[in-house]
Amino acid sequence: MTETFVVVGGDAAGMSAASKAKRDDPDREVIVFEKGEWVSYAACGMPYYVKGAVDELDDLVTVTPEEFREERDVDLRTGAEVVDVDTELQTVTVETDDGTDEQPYDDLLVATGASAIEPPFEGLGLEGVFTIHDMDEADAIEEYVTVHGPETAAIVGGGYVGIEMAEALSARGVDVHLYEMLPHVLQPFGEAVAAVVEDHLREQGVDLHLETAVSGFVGDERVDGVELEDEVVAADIAIVGVGVAPNTDLAEAAGIELGPTGAVATDEYGRTNDENVYAAGDCAEATHVVTGEPDHVPLALTANRAGRAIGQTVTGDPTPVGEIAGTAIVKAFDLGAARTGIVDEERAREAGFDPVSVTISASTRAHYYPDGAELTVTLVADRESGRLLGGTVVGREGAKRIDTVTTALTADMTVTELQNADLAYAPPFSPVWDPILTAAKVLAGKLE
Amino acid sequence: MTETFVVVGGDAAGMSAASKAKRDDPDREVIVFEKGEWVSYAACGMPYYVKGAVDELDDLVTVTPEEFREERDVDLRTGAEVVDVDTELQTVTVETDDGTDEQPYDDLLVATGASAIEPPFEGLGLEGVFTIHDMDEADAIEEYVTVHGPETAAIVGGGYVGIEMAEALSARGVDVHLYEMLPHVLQPFGEAVAAVVEDHLREQGVDLHLETAVSGFVGDERVDGVELEDEVVAADIAIVGVGVAPNTDLAEAAGIELGPTGAVATDEYGRTNDENVYAAGDCAEATHVVTGEPDHVPLALTANRAGRAIGQTVTGDPTPVGEIAGTAIVKAFDLGAARTGIVDEERAREAGFDPVSVTISASTRAHYYPDGAELTVTLVADRESGRLLGGTVVGREGAKRIDTVTTALTADMTVTELQNADLAYAPPFSPVWDPILTAAKVLAGKLE
Repeated sequence: MTETFVVVGGDAAGMSAASKAKRDDPDREVIVFEKGEWVSYAACGMPYYVKGAVDELDDLVTVTPEEFREERDVDLRTGAEVVDVDTELQTVTVETDDGTDEQPYDDLLVATGASAIEPPFEGLGLEGVFTIHDMDEADAIEEYVTVHGPETAAIVGGGYVGIEMAEALSARGVDVHLYEMLPHVLQPFGEAVAAVVEDHLREQGVDLHLETAVSGFVGDERVDGVELEDEVVAADIAIVGVGVAPNTDLAEAAGIELGPTGAVATDEYGRTNDENVYAAGDCAEATHVVTGEPDHVPLALTANRAGRAIGQTVTGDPTPVGEIAGTAIVKAFDLGAARTGIVDEERAREAGFDPVSVTISASTRAHYYPDGAELTVTLVADRESGRLLGGTVVGREGAKRIDTVTTALTADMTVTELQNADLAYAPPFSPVWDPILTAAKVLAGKLE
Repeated sequence: MTETFVVVGGDAAGMSAASKAKRDDPDREVIVFEKGEWVSYAACGMPYYVKGAVDELDDLVTVTPEEFREERDVDLRTGAEVVDVDTELQTVTVETDDGTDEQPYDDLLVATGASAIEPPFEGLGLEGVFTIHDMDEADAIEEYVTVHGPETAAIVGGGYVGIEMAEALSARGVDVHLYEMLPHVLQPFGEAVAAVVEDHLREQGVDLHLETAVSGFVGDERVDGVELEDEVVAADIAIVGVGVAPNTDLAEAAGIELGPTGAVATDEYGRTNDENVYAAGDCAEATHVVTGEPDHVPLALTANRAGRAIGQTVTGDPTPVGEIAGTAIVKAFDLGAARTGIVDEERAREAGFDPVSVTISASTRAHYYPDGAELTVTLVADRESGRLLGGTVVGREGAKRIDTVTTALTADMTVTELQNADLAYAPPFSPVWDPILTAAKVLAGKLE
């Protein structure tokens, strides 16, 4: 009898799983239910569409619905919302414009993603106030900028979405105010990165309002101001980017357990507490490679990788979904900033480590070679074992060097081992001691 | 009694050792003998001086003799050639313009470097024929180009020196012919890199003559042609860059053993067969991190690192010099090409592995993000263990991603472990699956 693999959610995790399962076992029935119309799209590219660096919203689609259906033979049903899962009967209830239907499954993947958090602000419903978490919203922002030509933007939240949107709207000629409740932007990147990024944002003309809480938006119909504790600042457009929360309602209602982060708990194969139900992508937890504990870092690579692994597992080739290091990279105007592992010393202590860290700045190229940039590198290690725990980099070039740090901490390397890595040197690409090596050398000295 | 650390050779390895020893033990007598006048200079920067990208030859000097003497308190003696070592008496014989002297040592570091190989060509002594291995030679080339304005250059050797000089002379308006005896340029980088680089060199107007042996140069006084098997091609300047050989005469005469590569054999602390004599830098072997065997890859980072470690060791803090991965990176006009580990399958087999390799090409950025470049990645792994053995990358950006591969193979990672590394993704920096991950994914599939 043909087995059926049902996937709820048609973005990175879901479509990776469906494609891989169908490729590895063409006889299997693979059905994907997606409540919207967009599938397999690059949410991370939306700010660049608003900016004008990407011409068409369709360019952000990696694989079209037609390609999934025709080339990959996946039974993809868009406009189809799964509203209930019965784990006893192994069926899902699906609502479409045509009515409600039951679909049995042998294996189920919950890949329901995450949604932009909507804070309890007044005026969230005003025209010109946006979150940015799906393609239609990106389209609406772009159109709003084009049609209304806003002069001043209020961006709420100094995370990567806020910073990317600051760049996008500045490029569109909008005067950007960025509001962040915390003392610094890019909180997960640590203060060394924040200091460099904040200076650069100001240089680029962004009005940074740190430690500033927004309470709402004002305007008739259309937004014309942002409300702070004791003043209202003009704003013709507002973007709220204060984080995302995993979409767990469907899973929870079906008795699927959530983990300590509030996302769906999974084992190393992406399996939930129900042996026929998997979860992956922005709705699910993953294991952190440094702490070995569950974590929730909703990013594209994690979703793609876990989806693909689950596609293999359900077709009979058990494949771990892999661990995460919380690696992230963001462009902030002319800067690149990146982080990996455990950067926050408080969090390192909670995980049982005794963190020691250093921050150094060094050129990305030989001192005499033209166009080098200063790269600021922070590395964090455990005092006793010397094990590398995390790191950050920020600069006008070289942010991808974070991958060296990620690879090192994934392999449980000590700082001394990293210091001795034979990294590539030639004057146009690095000083003799790459900035990562210099940071490791200084940190190793501090650990002695 | 004050102990004396004597260093022979004042470039990367020697000066790193001297500086570190003096810093860690200011009471120690540290004497460096350098036969020339230049110390601590970046030989790797010389092509960029010829190109005109670096204004002054002095810019290539990292630390000046005065800084070594005054700030670092190193007894640096330039114009002082060590002509003999007596390991029984623990003395070196030094010749200067003022005569010959004996200097006792407690520890000795042989850091005599390497010299450009001079093939048995006729006409090597003609004016306008150069090797490029010291600062005076770089100066002479630059001056020759400026004074004589050569129209056509013959570069002999398609290694990184040859390719860097091709770029440098092209930038100076010289029509470059590059002669390589082997079927491809950049032999240690493998054919996948060579194919991309060769196309690019031709696009840039370089006349590539592969599998073409040069037998000599012709001209009265000044060179005006290069002699091939059955023709003479015009050349107003010639650069011979066919590799370097370690300067081992001094060590050999003193009874210091050479290793299988012909360079000075050393242990993990850089010690030779004589317990008071160390060797480091371009004259010495180092241990390859993949094979565990001695290798000779004369590059700057290896020299700096080994020198520094030996400086620590002689002052009572035994420090391994670190292993090498044979990592190298080279700029070829607009391309960056890099390699690490064991790339050649024949060599992998000699080292006891069963090599499997893949080559993939992928964009350095998200497919929709502007200005991405194609990066060609080759990875090599051992079939049975899955252990990563080596890799190469080439493209218009992203060549430093080789460091991820280097770090992975230094940590004995398998291809599957690398495939699961949580590398950084955002559209301006990478596709969701970094090209390195894509290559690992494809190679892992091939290993199954």
